[in-house]
Amino acid sequence: MNRTVLESLLEDLGAGRITAAAAFVRLRDFPVEDLGFAQVDHHRAIRQDHPEVVLCEHKAVEHVLAICQRLHAAHGSFLGTRASPEQAEAVVARYPATRWDPLGRTLYHPPSVPPTPRGRPVAIVTAGTSDLPVANEAATVAEAWGARVERITDVGVAGLHRVLAASDQLRRAGAIIVVAGMEGALPSVVGGLVDCPVIAVPTSVGCGASFGGLAALLGMLNSCAAGVTVVNIDNGFGAAVAAARIVARTGE
Amino acid sequence: MNRTVLESLLEDLGAGRITAAAAFVRLRDFPVEDLGFAQVDHHRAIRQDHPEVVLCEHKAVEHVLAICQRLHAAHGSFLGTRASPEQAEAVVARYPATRWDPLGRTLYHPPSVPPTPRGRPVAIVTAGTSDLPVANEAATVAEAWGARVERITDVGVAGLHRVLAASDQLRRAGAIIVVAGMEGALPSVVGGLVDCPVIAVPTSVGCGASFGGLAALLGMLNSCAAGVTVVNIDNGFGAAVAAARIVARTGE
Amino acid sequence: MNRTVLESLLEDLGAGRITAAAAFVRLRDFPVEDLGFAQVDHHRAIRQDHPEVVLCEHKAVEHVLAICQRLHAAHGSFLGTRASPEQAEAVVARYPATRWDPLGRTLYHPPSVPPTPRGRPVAIVTAGTSDLPVANEAATVAEAWGARVERITDVGVAGLHRVLAASDQLRRAGAIIVVAGMEGALPSVVGGLVDCPVIAVPTSVGCGASFGGLAALLGMLNSCAAGVTVVNIDNGFGAAVAAARIVARTGE
Amino acid sequence: MNRTVLESLLEDLGAGRITAAAAFVRLRDFPVEDLGFAQVDHHRAIRQDHPEVVLCEHKAVEHVLAICQRLHAAHGSFLGTRASPEQAEAVVARYPATRWDPLGRTLYHPPSVPPTPRGRPVAIVTAGTSDLPVANEAATVAEAWGARVERITDVGVAGLHRVLAASDQLRRAGAIIVVAGMEGALPSVVGGLVDCPVIAVPTSVGCGASFGGLAALLGMLNSCAAGVTVVNIDNGFGAAVAAARIVARTGE
Amino acid sequence: MNRTVLESLLEDLGAGRITAAAAFVRLRDFPVEDLGFAQVDHHRAIRQDHPEVVLCEHKAVEHVLAICQRLHAAHGSFLGTRASPEQAEAVVARYPATRWDPLGRTLYHPPSVPPTPRGRPVAIVTAGTSDLPVANEAATVAEAWGARVERITDVGVAGLHRVLAASDQLRRAGAIIVVAGMEGALPSVVGGLVDCPVIAVPTSVGCGASFGGLAALLGMLNSCAAGVTVVNIDNGFGAAVAAARIVARTGE
Amino acid sequence: MNRTVLESLLEDLGAGRITAAAAFVRLRDFPVEDLGFAQVDHHRAIRQDHPEVVLCEHKAVEHVLAICQRLHAAHGSFLGTRASPEQAEAVVARYPATRWDPLGRTLYHPPSVPPTPRGRPVAIVTAGTSDLPVANEAATVAEAWGARVERITDVGVAGLHRVLAASDQLRRAGAIIVVAGMEGALPSVVGGLVDCPVIAVPTSVGCGASFGGLAALLGMLNSCAAGVTVVNIDNGFGAAVAAARIVARTGE
Amino acid sequence: MNRTVLESLLEDLGAGRITAAAAFVRLRDFPVEDLGFAQVDHHRAIRQDHPEVVLCEHKAVEHVLAICQRLHAAHGSFLGTRASPEQAEAVVARYPATRWDPLGRTLYHPPSVPPTPRGRPVAIVTAGTSDLPVANEAATVAEAWGARVERITDVGVAGLHRVLAASDQLRRAGAIIVVAGMEGALPSVVGGLVDCPVIAVPTSVGCGASFGGLAALLGMLNSCAAGVTVVNIDNGFGAAVAAARIVARTGE
Amino acid sequence: MNRTVLESLLEDLGAGRITAAAAFVRLRDFPVEDLGFAQVDHHRAIRQDHPEVVLCEHKAVEHVLAICQRLHAAHGSFLGTRASPEQAEAVVARYPATRWDPLGRTLYHPPSVPPTPRGRPVAIVTAGTSDLPVANEAATVAEAWGARVERITDVGVAGLHRVLAASDQLRRAGAIIVVAGMEGALPSVVGGLVDCPVIAVPTSVGCGASFGGLAALLGMLNSCAAGVTVVNIDNGFGAAVAAARIVARTGE
Repeated sequence: MNRTVLESLLEDLGAGRITAAAAFVRLRDFPVEDLGFAQVDHHRAIRQDHPEVVLCEHKAVEHVLAICQRLHAAHGSFLGTRASPEQAEAVVARYPATRWDPLGRTLYHPPSVPPTPRGRPVAIVTAGTSDLPVANEAATVAEAWGARVERITDVGVAGLHRVLAASDQLRRAGAIIVVAGMEGALPSVVGGLVDCPVIAVPTSVGCGASFGGLAALLGMLNSCAAGVTVVNIDNGFGAAVAAARIVARTGE
Repeated sequence: MNRTVLESLLEDLGAGRITAAAAFVRLRDFPVEDLGFAQVDHHRAIRQDHPEVVLCEHKAVEHVLAICQRLHAAHGSFLGTRASPEQAEAVVARYPATRWDPLGRTLYHPPSVPPTPRGRPVAIVTAGTSDLPVANEAATVAEAWGARVERITDVGVAGLHRVLAASDQLRRAGAIIVVAGMEGALPSVVGGLVDCPVIAVPTSVGCGASFGGLAALLGMLNSCAAGVTVVNIDNGFGAAVAAARIVARTGE
Repeated sequence: MNRTVLESLLEDLGAGRITAAAAFVRLRDFPVEDLGFAQVDHHRAIRQDHPEVVLCEHKAVEHVLAICQRLHAAHGSFLGTRASPEQAEAVVARYPATRWDPLGRTLYHPPSVPPTPRGRPVAIVTAGTSDLPVANEAATVAEAWGARVERITDVGVAGLHRVLAASDQLRRAGAIIVVAGMEGALPSVVGGLVDCPVIAVPTSVGCGASFGGLAALLGMLNSCAAGVTVVNIDNGFGAAVAAARIVARTGE
Repeated sequence: MNRTVLESLLEDLGAGRITAAAAFVRLRDFPVEDLGFAQVDHHRAIRQDHPEVVLCEHKAVEHVLAICQRLHAAHGSFLGTRASPEQAEAVVARYPATRWDPLGRTLYHPPSVPPTPRGRPVAIVTAGTSDLPVANEAATVAEAWGARVERITDVGVAGLHRVLAASDQLRRAGAIIVVAGMEGALPSVVGGLVDCPVIAVPTSVGCGASFGGLAALLGMLNSCAAGVTVVNIDNGFGAAVAAARIVARTGE
Repeated sequence: MNRTVLESLLEDLGAGRITAAAAFVRLRDFPVEDLGFAQVDHHRAIRQDHPEVVLCEHKAVEHVLAICQRLHAAHGSFLGTRASPEQAEAVVARYPATRWDPLGRTLYHPPSVPPTPRGRPVAIVTAGTSDLPVANEAATVAEAWGARVERITDVGVAGLHRVLAASDQLRRAGAIIVVAGMEGALPSVVGGLVDCPVIAVPTSVGCGASFGGLAALLGMLNSCAAGVTVVNIDNGFGAAVAAARIVARTGE
Repeated sequence: MNRTVLESLLEDLGAGRITAAAAFVRLRDFPVEDLGFAQVDHHRAIRQDHPEVVLCEHKAVEHVLAICQRLHAAHGSFLGTRASPEQAEAVVARYPATRWDPLGRTLYHPPSVPPTPRGRPVAIVTAGTSDLPVANEAATVAEAWGARVERITDVGVAGLHRVLAASDQLRRAGAIIVVAGMEGALPSVVGGLVDCPVIAVPTSVGCGASFGGLAALLGMLNSCAAGVTVVNIDNGFGAAVAAARIVARTGE
Repeated sequence: MNRTVLESLLEDLGAGRITAAAAFVRLRDFPVEDLGFAQVDHHRAIRQDHPEVVLCEHKAVEHVLAICQRLHAAHGSFLGTRASPEQAEAVVARYPATRWDPLGRTLYHPPSVPPTPRGRPVAIVTAGTSDLPVANEAATVAEAWGARVERITDVGVAGLHRVLAASDQLRRAGAIIVVAGMEGALPSVVGGLVDCPVIAVPTSVGCGASFGGLAALLGMLNSCAAGVTVVNIDNGFGAAVAAARIVARTGE
Repeated sequence: MNRTVLESLLEDLGAGRITAAAAFVRLRDFPVEDLGFAQVDHHRAIRQDHPEVVLCEHKAVEHVLAICQRLHAAHGSFLGTRASPEQAEAVVARYPATRWDPLGRTLYHPPSVPPTPRGRPVAIVTAGTSDLPVANEAATVAEAWGARVERITDVGVAGLHRVLAASDQLRRAGAIIVVAGMEGALPSVVGGLVDCPVIAVPTSVGCGASFGGLAALLGMLNSCAAGVTVVNIDNGFGAAVAAARIVARTGE
């Protein structure tokens, strides 16, 4: 139940088009539905125009399924991240329309009327093939948030001609997500080529002194290119939400 | 010399309205002007729609002055960050129209025709009074980049009624910069209230285990609110550039 | 054998109600019983009014069982934390009255006459569902120490209305344990709402730059709310002991 | 204006004993008084039974003075921590009843009717003479919060007979603050002797691998004694608030 | 072949009691025997009075066996640390006189004439039962180096009466090894009671912010007791060698 | 296709010895061949005189195989590092001429005409037997890059006579790779003996406070011997490329 | 008052050679003398055969002077470390027999009858000239503790012939203190040459990634030479106490 | 006295062209001259073809002067790094031919016959103007070691056209030193353009999470470009020695 739906519900009630009892049924779990082990924040769809997303990691299969059921009942769609194959199997069995991406570990059940993509595209750029899982997560989330996504793959800075060849595509984007591990230098190079916001995602790809992505994270935070912001290591989800919000308000 | 100026220069030349010699004079230091100790990247105004900014820290007074002169000659304006009082005195003496903010440590010489503010406002929120220097730097930079700025001051999470009282103002913003030290919790709270992009700036304010802003930085990177991105500790400049780019493309 | 029991034993002996031989049998392992691989500190019940607790982690099953037997013989009850299913199975088989909580990993055999809950309640608040194991450990320990426990679940700061809705319940508590991972912001928010002691427990829940709970730990140590104290990562046990001692001396 | 004062003000107004205009004058800056550079949270005295405390560090002398004036006007008292000699001089000149402790760096102006000490004493224990500044800060704050304070000085663990000699005094306390640098072992020893809550304050005293108090902080977080909670490095203020809240509800 | 053996071999040769050919056979792998994958340093027994010790970890079973064979051939004994059960099984099958300690993970084949224990005893003190594996390693190594070992177990600082009860035994020692995890406070307490050298061994026992023994290591390095030296985390071997060398030169 | 091959291809085309169509076939994937999941940088062989190397870690078996096929087609050889046995099995099955080193985890398919070793030898020195995997990786890579390799094994600084015995061999080298874990002292000792460049490779071998090779890395970065440079932990590959480039230009 | 003095005092009293009143005067501050700001542990001279040492750092000049006076009155000597020139001036003015070493920052007033050096010498070895302050502190302390000291200076591992030239001198020592900064490799080299205990002192000498001595500390903790123990960064005092205790019990 | 000089001295003596007494005078301080506070390693010029370099930091002015005098007497030249203005003044006063670079902090007295530059040039590349001090140190040292130096300044990755414009110059170099702070991305970009060895020098330039150069150091260690090796933060000296050794053996 997002803002539009709530507004029309209230208008219908005010205009006598529906009864108070009918409105009650639709609103009784609003704004928070208590499942005992969790409180599902249905109000978020009003406050932030998108229902709560299920972080599946560390949750029991039955808990994931229960939360998806509540979200589906309230909003007709749901989105889960960091899902395991077991969780995916259970959710897909119950909701066959769910899209399961084993690489990006996302579970996405689109609404019956998918959102019309808004604004300029979000470009998702990766430095190497090992960064693909994070890029996949970001792509699914951005699309669920109503963004158009374009992918530019394997253009790390040790072979600059690859990223330079993509300059025009980069300059058309409304926001750019740059996913990179190791030294995390790609966002600085991309950030120097464009004038739209760049969101850097460090990945845990690397060996030795990469310290699980810390080297890339520090590199990106210290980027010499202005306008680069950073999210947590491997956090494709967070980058995608930020990027989708940016492009939602841009023209084409 | 930004994109518009370059285009009209080339049109004038193409149409015979100016001579090649005149065009040469204006273009001879384009795209890069070599000062010996530095290469001023005039091309940046074309590529990224804003001239290079002078990071004054660690630079000699005469170097700061020299770079400002070159930027003034080429663009009619300049912007310096992390300036010392000595640097400020020298620059203001030469260019009295320069605005010196000793708290935010910025030196801003606006162009003769200041940019018309574009898009929805950038809200700059601080958790405590010690965060004001970073907020001031961000405000000056965002305005230089053409954004309208609104300030919300001293609304840390230990007194929630202060930030809740600002909810409406926050929801009108096109992008929000949240400046906080210590545990850095304010971006999560703000990020849960709004649906626009939130940029978190950790500050080095704190004692003991704040480790010069590391605690706030880690807190912000791990924010449970979606859509929060982070910049380096005390980096009001970077947050402002990102925010200004976001709102530049929004409607009112 | 706690303080009360020892005092009455000594009074009985002084009054001739029991023989010295009988007293000897009860006191022979006092204050420390040497099991070869461990020294069970029975004196602790006198000194600190609660018998030693068994940290089961890293101990062999037979060692856990042996220590529980000695504690049961001396005090009629025992409490184990961080127990594995194998350890639990062995202990429950021997002492069927033992309560095994597989989520919180506690093994609790209450005394035949359970302690009467004392003082105002201990509120245990969690930010997310992944924090439940630590909250469960804390709840069992606090109850074993004689406290009344109330639970407030899944009220993270990204949806403030959830924690604000619990304000009255929080203000009735004699001590509050706040369990949170990720950025660990919830204790600051709770600490700003109440005037009783708040004990923050960082959890190892999180990804990337949470560094196994370090981000939450640092956030809590730097809390801007006065009166917040902190325990080790995932240390529900320690928080519960501190909270139970606080409320033990309060009125209702 | 604390809870009692507000209640009687409202009763007076309801009973016609004062005019609405008079009430307005006293309430016009309630709950938050905006000084431009800061928002003074007068509501805190209602919510948490003690006015806001001024963290003087990083504040201009005139700002400290201005905030103290507002607090004095509203509550008849104020408390500042981490004050510099310059700040102290200005405040004492204006309010000669202010107590300035240059070692603990506190500025305390007691109310005209000082609080009657409540509950069992707070014991403040230091490991070495270098820990005295933090202990002084804690003592002033605890007394301002209405606690009785007892001091036990220079009883580090390398000479155990010193702390053992203080056992009886420790056991009479309602809460114990243990201040220690270097390896931070004293809280574990004290925590094994008593059954009241122990709050450990690591100090930045030490050399080399003490890393500014990090070694002591980690040691205290890993204390093998149950019921020890920890505050930030050198944070005597936070420990005192927690301790004062604990004893406020105990009987003698 | 230690110093004594080499001297008598050379004397025998000088006196004509053995032939040069016989001496050659015994000396041909002196000082270094090259196994291709390793160079066995037989000279160490001359230089440092004890043959090389085999660190079994990360070595293939056949490599461990091969090195033990070379050491046995040259010295009639060998000592391995950090051995796996598979390595132990292979070595014991070949040399049934080998002593395998699965807790301490040592493989010790004593020489046919074991060393007569020299000097005052080495006391090995542990804080908790989880420290036993490290203490066992230290005990075996110290005995192999010719020291008499005494064990004092489970005397952590949260129950001081346990370590105080061992004061006399501690004061008789020629060197003391203190093994402790968590906050690592025991060496400071022991170091304050005695006047012989104390060697502290931090263990990786602990949770959360113990960071795999780092907290204990830092605590021990910052010990306020003079005369405490420290070895690497879990390094019972190194502590034992240092302690054995200390007592080797003391009288009884 | 390296520089020589490209030059002769262009000469053939310019001289009419081949048709444009034939040239096209050979050049159509130049400079970058897009496999969808990866962009193979064939231009690197021109730019840097050696084809791209496959970092097999984190790649699917079929992706490794596909990239090797493209490299084989373009260059007649390939080199993979950090390969798993499964990856090796698949590649060797397809290209039986591939050399698989399970210890060093390299997969090397030499060109039909192997490069003639150039310049003075590269010496690869290891401190202990646990450093062999990294040394093996370095040896294979250096040979693939056209260097002659000499090995000096197990000469750690605790037995100095071993490394001193190798002095002459070290002084003949054109570049030296020193592989060491634990305290990483060997590069300083070697660096003090020679006047050629020394490249230090820290390994993750060690226990406790080695922190996965961090101690060795820091030691090497702080080497008191001039002319020592360092690569990432366990990065035998990077050290070998640097060393091979150094010797490629030296005489014998 | 050390052990011998106390024993003869008690014998005199028992034999009637002195009066109880006279004994009282000498014992009234035994075992602990309370100065208000500090508790001087006179019992330490009994327990550990050496009076308490004054860590002058962070103490006021008058406090240092007061403690020295008490120690002089009780023991006829005193030893201060980390003294400032101001502290030194005050103490030397009062006790002209005090020896002030401005490099090592020690203040030593020897007893009227200096201790006869006992046992084999303590060798103090430094890697570079910047390590001299720590070595000086160690030398003064070791001599105050009754040890004979020999110095070996500037023998870092980048010029091995220097330390090898000192081999014989090293082998005569009863204990060796090795002081080194940067990579801290010297203790491993020395530890491989001798069979006596080696105590490593990391110094804060270095640049960049030495991190104030952390690199040297980690290197020494990971030393591949057995029998090396470590003290805190720059802690010449602690190393000297340990070394003096070791040699005190050795023969010549 | 380098290798050539020593050889001719010995030939002269062997051929009777000089007397043994004359040879003695020249050799009496060979290989090590003991100044009491330091041992000057004159043998280094033989072993490594360049005299010892004076690290002036932390040395007294008179010590620096004394060592320079000894080096001048033995070799006719000297080189000091990290010199203070006071040290420089004293040395220049005594040896007016000394070149003092206050930015790079080097003191260089060239030999009367300067070395003929050997091999291909060393390119020294800087990312920003703040990196100039380190680049200057590197340039002086490389020239003292006999290399030709070329400088490429202020070509950070946020303006790629600057470094791309220098491609040809980079490709002519025999070795490249890349000096960069902040995120340290420039070595990866340069390393992807060339086929000669690249030595990366992280600088301590930066703010916040650059942590004194740690971010740049980690970035460079994790460089995705093969053949990049790294030296310590701000260590222009070490990079120059390595680079000079590399080019010394290359042809033009």
